Amino acid sequence: MTHATLNRQPQPQTTDDSRFVRGLAQLNQIDGDAGEAVVARVGAIAPDFARYLVEFGFGDIYSRPGLGLREREIAVVAALAALGNAAPQLKVHLNAALNVGVTRDEILEVLMMMSLYAGFPAALNGLFAAQEVFDARDAAGN
Amino acid sequence: MTHATLNRQPQPQTTDDSRFVRGLAQLNQIDGDAGEAVVARVGAIAPDFARYLVEFGFGDIYSRPGLGLREREIAVVAALAALGNAAPQLKVHLNAALNVGVTRDEILEVLMMMSLYAGFPAALNGLFAAQEVFDARDAAGN
Amino acid sequence: MTHATLNRQPQPQTTDDSRFVRGLAQLNQIDGDAGEAVVARVGAIAPDFARYLVEFGFGDIYSRPGLGLREREIAVVAALAALGNAAPQLKVHLNAALNVGVTRDEILEVLMMMSLYAGFPAALNGLFAAQEVFDARDAAGN
Amino acid sequence: MTHATLNRQPQPQTTDDSRFVRGLAQLNQIDGDAGEAVVARVGAIAPDFARYLVEFGFGDIYSRPGLGLREREIAVVAALAALGNAAPQLKVHLNAALNVGVTRDEILEVLMMMSLYAGFPAALNGLFAAQEVFDARDAAGN
Amino acid sequence: MTHATLNRQPQPQTTDDSRFVRGLAQLNQIDGDAGEAVVARVGAIAPDFARYLVEFGFGDIYSRPGLGLREREIAVVAALAALGNAAPQLKVHLNAALNVGVTRDEILEVLMMMSLYAGFPAALNGLFAAQEVFDARDAAGN
Amino acid sequence: MTHATLNRQPQPQTTDDSRFVRGLAQLNQIDGDAGEAVVARVGAIAPDFARYLVEFGFGDIYSRPGLGLREREIAVVAALAALGNAAPQLKVHLNAALNVGVTRDEILEVLMMMSLYAGFPAALNGLFAAQEVFDARDAAGN
Repeated sequence: MTHATLNRQPQPQTTDDSRFVRGLAQLNQIDGDAGEAVVARVGAIAPDFARYLVEFGFGDIYSRPGLGLREREIAVVAALAALGNAAPQLKVHLNAALNVGVTRDEILEVLMMMSLYAGFPAALNGLFAAQEVFDARDAAGN
Repeated sequence: MTHATLNRQPQPQTTDDSRFVRGLAQLNQIDGDAGEAVVARVGAIAPDFARYLVEFGFGDIYSRPGLGLREREIAVVAALAALGNAAPQLKVHLNAALNVGVTRDEILEVLMMMSLYAGFPAALNGLFAAQEVFDARDAAGN
Repeated sequence: MTHATLNRQPQPQTTDDSRFVRGLAQLNQIDGDAGEAVVARVGAIAPDFARYLVEFGFGDIYSRPGLGLREREIAVVAALAALGNAAPQLKVHLNAALNVGVTRDEILEVLMMMSLYAGFPAALNGLFAAQEVFDARDAAGN
Repeated sequence: MTHATLNRQPQPQTTDDSRFVRGLAQLNQIDGDAGEAVVARVGAIAPDFARYLVEFGFGDIYSRPGLGLREREIAVVAALAALGNAAPQLKVHLNAALNVGVTRDEILEVLMMMSLYAGFPAALNGLFAAQEVFDARDAAGN
Repeated sequence: MTHATLNRQPQPQTTDDSRFVRGLAQLNQIDGDAGEAVVARVGAIAPDFARYLVEFGFGDIYSRPGLGLREREIAVVAALAALGNAAPQLKVHLNAALNVGVTRDEILEVLMMMSLYAGFPAALNGLFAAQEVFDARDAAGN
Repeated sequence: MTHATLNRQPQPQTTDDSRFVRGLAQLNQIDGDAGEAVVARVGAIAPDFARYLVEFGFGDIYSRPGLGLREREIAVVAALAALGNAAPQLKVHLNAALNVGVTRDEILEVLMMMSLYAGFPAALNGLFAAQEVFDARDAAGN
């Protein structure tokens, strides 16, 4: 059963979709196909939320020029590894980090350092996730 | 009451204190006086733990060359802001980030981005902490 | 191996089992078969704990009249989605919420709002869990 | 030192400020003066973020009609109490809940129930925060 | 304003108050005056919850003979230090641990070990809390 | 692809490997084969980190004589169950606890008690993990 009723909520239509356009471009630059896959998956259950993700997450925040994409993904990988409760998103961002130029060794350094701030389990689970991501990319020839 | 008994535990004395020396140098470079203050405060209750902090935290992890100090502090600020339960340490690292060349604007960008990964409260509390740190540095002429 | 020894602990037997009876009735009303399944699963390893769950969780807390069951399940779904580390229980309560009259759209609204308080990963993982629960109910004709 | 440079970031200006206007109205309805105080405090350090809070938090999410404000604040109070690491925001929302018609007894019920999902410390700290909020409102004649 | 209405909820009165009596005795044995103070503080805002704390927390769980009080308090201190978001309760249990015979050095060992499982900030904040508790007891001649 | 480059980082070689030797012995005593498996798995992606785990985790912390191994594992099981986001490590330590003499009933008591400090989901997920560990040991004749 679809939840099409959601997009019929009386929400004022914005005549300015620049946030969405900018966001989608940013999403593609960082996450490639994986990003569109998440948006599609979310859109299947909550279309408005997929839109917010693109507009606010990428149109408003990620496209801000005050911090480079390498630094952004380093920060996100660190935060998600430390929180330890968002494994799917951590993998998305491990890939995103590699996509924007963070090296595999740099990623491992970030994860190892999380042992100091969130403990060894958080760091270990992050390293195991990185291993899976690296192996998948190797298998796909990336 | 001191806890001097702790340093009389039958722990093999390492004949190689290079980790401690390297760690202390790294700690000073990053945290300056604030770092030594934390080590002293910890040492007053658990001397061995102060030593582990310097040796493992700074001698083993921070001094690794595979990731720059700017990136390290960006990662730590992100993680601690996301966790939201280590306010004293977040302030130490906000200062550390500034010390190693992360700009105030970059710090604010990292914290704002945490709204996406840990929610607005985490981002807000991080921004309020940053405000305190910036104000203190302004007052001290830094 | 059973752990039958647990129920031979010298624990005073209560002559008043009204909390258990009230709790079981409340559990059935809210969780139906799924609730009994959890109690049975817990009872297989720690019989006393299954009893506490029914007596305290449902007999003492859930049966209190000061807050309606719709509001209770909205609160629990929000909390578990925000915590992000109790996926099995989140699914139990997504079903419970539907059982006590919270609509699918209301559930999605609660989960989307968690993006503000615990970040997008928490909200996304909650939405994905809701999708699974809705699909299972559709497949079962509920 | 102000951070006025932030609002000079090359960010496309939206010609449609309906999200901000809608958000501010929603914020005032729910939080009254307290909401404006938070926005002002945030605006003093990161003006763009204050704008996002109003636009996304209140303009996009809170103003959605699919879930009533009473239910929204019940969900938020539950989540923040369970997370246990956002005391300032929990107090803001305890006040917001009262403002939108959740009774004091209902708030206490939500907090007591968090003992089941996040433990007694989370519930206790939530109850202590509620006590402070109730006392302050009593003192102010609310 | 009291919340006396809470104790007039239509809740079946148990004719068997052995759980409360057993709980109160256990609470006094472990926490002494500090325990009664918490119960009184909670009772001032939510009388039923104070009763649950005594009945379930101490009457059901703490009085179980399968695990000694020393081990129980070691487990609780570890958990609360790791969670890092319940500072008041951590201090209560640091005192409780000392009351039931865990030594100061053992407490410090537990806290130091939390650096491995929750990171150095959690361990440090736990050690600082322990310092406060030890100093207060020294000042009181305990 | 191996990450052999990691062990060529310009890190001063310690001439004193007593921490590693002591750590490995401690690891074997507590975790047996499971411990070596984790170290090997980590070593395959980040060799230095596997070394830190052995040296700091076991050589520095676990081998300290101020707290018995039974108490250490009780503390770790409690912390990991409370955190609820490190299921693989919780299982490792459930086995470790049994290895060092904590009984099955004692383990269940620790986990049940976590319902008070982290909520029923944390306790339940810990009990389910314990069930798996006990069953696996029964199947292997342990």
